[in-house]
Amino acid sequence: MSDVIRKYERRAEAVNSLLCVGLDPEIERIPERFRSDALPFFAFCRWIIEQTHSVALAYKPNVAFFEARGSLGLEELARTAEYLRSEHPEIVTICDAKRADIGNTNRGYVASIFDAMGFDAVTLHPYLGREALAPFLERKDKASIILCRTSNTGAGEFQDLVSDGKPLWETVAERVSKEWNGNDNCMLVVGATYPAEMRRIREVAPALPFLVPGVGAQGGDVAAVVAAGLDAKGKGLLISSSRGILFAGDPAVAARQLRDEINAAREKIYAAR
Amino acid sequence: MSDVIRKYERRAEAVNSLLCVGLDPEIERIPERFRSDALPFFAFCRWIIEQTHSVALAYKPNVAFFEARGSLGLEELARTAEYLRSEHPEIVTICDAKRADIGNTNRGYVASIFDAMGFDAVTLHPYLGREALAPFLERKDKASIILCRTSNTGAGEFQDLVSDGKPLWETVAERVSKEWNGNDNCMLVVGATYPAEMRRIREVAPALPFLVPGVGAQGGDVAAVVAAGLDAKGKGLLISSSRGILFAGDPAVAARQLRDEINAAREKIYAAR
Repeated sequence: MSDVIRKYERRAEAVNSLLCVGLDPEIERIPERFRSDALPFFAFCRWIIEQTHSVALAYKPNVAFFEARGSLGLEELARTAEYLRSEHPEIVTICDAKRADIGNTNRGYVASIFDAMGFDAVTLHPYLGREALAPFLERKDKASIILCRTSNTGAGEFQDLVSDGKPLWETVAERVSKEWNGNDNCMLVVGATYPAEMRRIREVAPALPFLVPGVGAQGGDVAAVVAAGLDAKGKGLLISSSRGILFAGDPAVAARQLRDEINAAREKIYAAR
Repeated sequence: MSDVIRKYERRAEAVNSLLCVGLDPEIERIPERFRSDALPFFAFCRWIIEQTHSVALAYKPNVAFFEARGSLGLEELARTAEYLRSEHPEIVTICDAKRADIGNTNRGYVASIFDAMGFDAVTLHPYLGREALAPFLERKDKASIILCRTSNTGAGEFQDLVSDGKPLWETVAERVSKEWNGNDNCMLVVGATYPAEMRRIREVAPALPFLVPGVGAQGGDVAAVVAAGLDAKGKGLLISSSRGILFAGDPAVAARQLRDEINAAREKIYAAR
């Protein structure tokens, strides 16, 4: 078991949580009092982390929201990662960057995301294949989270194309599970909005953790996700919510409620097994 | 014809060139004299642009090389884009970022790449489908360059999967050409290392310009690319070279030689038609 997978297991047990908090700050939506800060996104994210860390398995900033503010935003992202590393080293950190270039070029992203900012994991596009992603996959101390079935309504345009009797998302799941995961450091992105596909992906990739976006604002149902995606050990999921927590009246309450909703669904599954 | 496609046509004719110069700086490889600069990548790129602009149809910085240096690197990228915009507004600028997230999240990348940095075009992964990429595609004043057949040796792992009798790369080319290009602002990435596939993609997408990485260090052959990819008007290509120009003894000579090699290959095709 790789370092990050072990960290995932330990943290999920320690706080009895499969909750991943998505850090997607928007300047118009963060509370007024943070906007005058020199680093408003960092100040806001630090506050969110203070409010929610006791129930968080993982934090997942999406780089697009930070890059929207240029080099200052990237500085705020780095500061957020640094804060998590120093204050909460037991919590899994995911850089939701959706990167993927050819071989050597990826070394730039590895240097930035894994080394300089120190994230535990990164999200990656599969289109270029395993050979291109080697600089990420060979990092035994980090995790690569491959887009498999995305949560958007148009996800099927290419992902549903069938070859050898299987849709592309199933082939991606199978390859990552059987061929890419030699260092036991891979995970898959599987959208909450496609529970039937998630059930099939769990069969094809029984041991891989799934990062699950799409509950809340995008319409994914927590109970359906848990029923479809839980692994044999009753874990194997990182269920991510962003706007539903960040912009709630009370983020601490929203995070705890979602953690508890996930756990209630897990209890039902345990009872039925 | 969209703004960027028109700019492409005008510039290709003005300097009789299909050459795209890839700006992929590496701190260990740039000349000593730039390393002590406060913004070494910007200083180096500006020098490369000074040396090569008279034969350049386009410049294409790859973001990974800049992000490797954190927020400072992103500042250097922004300065490079700004320099190109003010000094050479007639040259096409491509941000080789290989981005793609779901719908609204892409707005962060649009804000950064198109608006703040002012690039003409961006490279994008197709895996999430057209619906996800709408924030890019709806920009009539900009161009979206979709990864179709990438230049890496392992490109075929998913791209070669056949459904409905066609490999995935062909389906991507077909969809982008027939369905995504409503604003006439799409291009395709087609690697120089796969001329047979490029020939087929030209049949499927007769009017789309191809951004072609992979000549030089990666082994792609210029004559084969030109024979396979030229459109009916004798253009339709942006043949990109990075290391072969940036780290040549004389970048100006290397750029001119490649431009001339491309044109010699074009002449042969014209003569044969």
